[in-house]
Amino acid sequence: MKSLDKGVCAPAGFRAGAAAGGIKKAGTQRLDCALIVSDMPASVAGVFTTNMVQAAPVRYCREICRAGKGRAIFANSGNANACTGDPGYADVLKTADIAGALLKLPPDEICVCSTGVIGVPMPMDRLEKGVCACVAALSDDGSPDTARAIMTTDTKPKELAVEVSCGGGRVRLGGIAKGAGMIAPNMATMLCFLTTDAAVAPADLRHLLHAAAEQSFNCICVDNDMSTNDTLLCLANDASGTVPIVPGGADYARFGEALNELCRELAQALVRDGEGATKFVEIEVTGVPDDRAARQIAASVARSQLCKTAFYGQDANWGRIACAAGYAGVVFDPGLLDVYIQGIRVLAHGCPVAYEEVEIQARMQAPELRVRLELNSGGGHATFWTSDLSVEYVTINADYRT
Amino acid sequence: MKSLDKGVCAPAGFRAGAAAGGIKKAGTQRLDCALIVSDMPASVAGVFTTNMVQAAPVRYCREICRAGKGRAIFANSGNANACTGDPGYADVLKTADIAGALLKLPPDEICVCSTGVIGVPMPMDRLEKGVCACVAALSDDGSPDTARAIMTTDTKPKELAVEVSCGGGRVRLGGIAKGAGMIAPNMATMLCFLTTDAAVAPADLRHLLHAAAEQSFNCICVDNDMSTNDTLLCLANDASGTVPIVPGGADYARFGEALNELCRELAQALVRDGEGATKFVEIEVTGVPDDRAARQIAASVARSQLCKTAFYGQDANWGRIACAAGYAGVVFDPGLLDVYIQGIRVLAHGCPVAYEEVEIQARMQAPELRVRLELNSGGGHATFWTSDLSVEYVTINADYRT
Repeated sequence: MKSLDKGVCAPAGFRAGAAAGGIKKAGTQRLDCALIVSDMPASVAGVFTTNMVQAAPVRYCREICRAGKGRAIFANSGNANACTGDPGYADVLKTADIAGALLKLPPDEICVCSTGVIGVPMPMDRLEKGVCACVAALSDDGSPDTARAIMTTDTKPKELAVEVSCGGGRVRLGGIAKGAGMIAPNMATMLCFLTTDAAVAPADLRHLLHAAAEQSFNCICVDNDMSTNDTLLCLANDASGTVPIVPGGADYARFGEALNELCRELAQALVRDGEGATKFVEIEVTGVPDDRAARQIAASVARSQLCKTAFYGQDANWGRIACAAGYAGVVFDPGLLDVYIQGIRVLAHGCPVAYEEVEIQARMQAPELRVRLELNSGGGHATFWTSDLSVEYVTINADYRT
Repeated sequence: MKSLDKGVCAPAGFRAGAAAGGIKKAGTQRLDCALIVSDMPASVAGVFTTNMVQAAPVRYCREICRAGKGRAIFANSGNANACTGDPGYADVLKTADIAGALLKLPPDEICVCSTGVIGVPMPMDRLEKGVCACVAALSDDGSPDTARAIMTTDTKPKELAVEVSCGGGRVRLGGIAKGAGMIAPNMATMLCFLTTDAAVAPADLRHLLHAAAEQSFNCICVDNDMSTNDTLLCLANDASGTVPIVPGGADYARFGEALNELCRELAQALVRDGEGATKFVEIEVTGVPDDRAARQIAASVARSQLCKTAFYGQDANWGRIACAAGYAGVVFDPGLLDVYIQGIRVLAHGCPVAYEEVEIQARMQAPELRVRLELNSGGGHATFWTSDLSVEYVTINADYRT
């Protein structure tokens, strides 16, 4: 696998463009509209929030992914178009119509996504200008701007592309993502748009994308709040001219691994840029009867407010880690539990281990922390990624809307 | 029902005493040992943490409550005696032996509880002196000191007593509680000790206590971390000389309601004193098919980090409230959802309502906030109490251990 530049435009046959539509703030030049277009017909698959309160664009994109054909993705930041009732849904259809007319594409092959404040009607006049400006800006250098345009409280854009041998040639995969708050497993408050020039049928793409989300976006946590707008979309346009990827073969596995890798890297980038985050923390759980139980324990530690504040305080507070494991809803023998922090075993079979406080404190200064829980009762394992909970997180979110 | 002074010593036949044992910090005069004693045989019942990692005193008290006879409760703060292995359990037995010898009571009728730092062996020499000093301090004015002695990060003691007509006379119930962090439903990091001079058999007391916890300590939330030491105990010593309280009668209901009231008040006092809390927030959910679903939704909002930071920011961010309801795991129609903040309807059948921003901002300044979600689909309801998430919370918990 090889890393490439150009993000979503790295795969052949994709262009992208962004514009300042005045959705984030009228009259400013902040990018807030983004468009990704495939020059040829493409498969589309999506993974969406499981929240009961779903934004209008999420309901709309589900329909498109059900049909499986997608040529373009338009997204805006600054307004989530959530809790906006029937008028909100009509605005999504109108947006697809506007983009379709300009691009000369059927509107029902244009995905529309939104992120931002909940409950405010979409300013359609400004959004329409944003769509027009995005179409005018389309180029194969447009990915960095689209990555910026979908940002809300993110401090930096997230963009990545890889190339992999597959289907008798080389296929490319590219992606952009946003999200820094409302990040919880299943899924995060995030938008993530992937492109590939591989040939993959919609049903297979759906299967591969769900599997990739399971190991990436569903294994991260910033603040446990699952949003109304979470959307992961992938367009596959066959522009590489390689052999179609079908289930069962080595190509399927290789393409799937590249997709996993891309999703994992982008998911980790979200955590690294988590609201107020000063630490990136990997929680690994091993020695559990099955992977599902391991996930539950890893998620419980990753979500614990007390563990997250201890990470912020650079405090090797293993008591809080053992405690969070204990309320994960998994039955286990605490007398078999080992806990490692930054490679140092601090709890062995449920009992504290004497360790050098100075040494562990020094290791806790690192920007990336590693916590491992070994339950010594089986072969199941799981890994979660989380951020710390800082004073800055509270400040950011106490003031966000106003 | 009448409010009384004297806390756990308000019911007849109880004495209490506290002492500075040097467990919190050697050589200081901070109270950290507490003892409550019944002058006559008593029933005992308990509700405990459901964490898999349970402190030694929790495992020990479960045994005592299974037998149902309890004469005294000894508790220390400053050390949780959790994750301390077999030596930790031996220390609990030794503590009961020391107290039993001094009080001339069977050790297996003496409950022992601990709260504080996890994973540090109990300093038994200092604890022994603490037990002796508590016995020497026993009096019927001792309740306020015991309420102080069990505090950890609490900023104020929690103590209450009530009197109720029951069993052909008047019975009294008293209680003290502690807990400010690691507060989550099922249950909180809390110790709560109740006394009553009513005559109640152990099995009935257990039933009533569980029902009271369900509506009080299991409906509060500060930071969602369930601790290793949560313990609620009640001693009933029959010193009132009233008719025994048995299931089925009006006395049973009346006594049960007094117990509920006492638990609810103490639980709310924990939230009011939640770590870093600047707001006390009541979340009421109505119009749901059943109470269980209503509880799930109320808990989801009460636990949401984003809602809690919005409360801190005095921001009527109903989008986050609707969003947290949406991921509660309950299937509902978001098109029927109404949300009220401080009595103002901000969402009606899933759509934003125009309201006076100035008016709602003024109402959000209040130290007590009220949020109501009406789902317009049934008679189920539930109420939860939560605190806001402040900058101070993070500061307190980033530095707690060190």
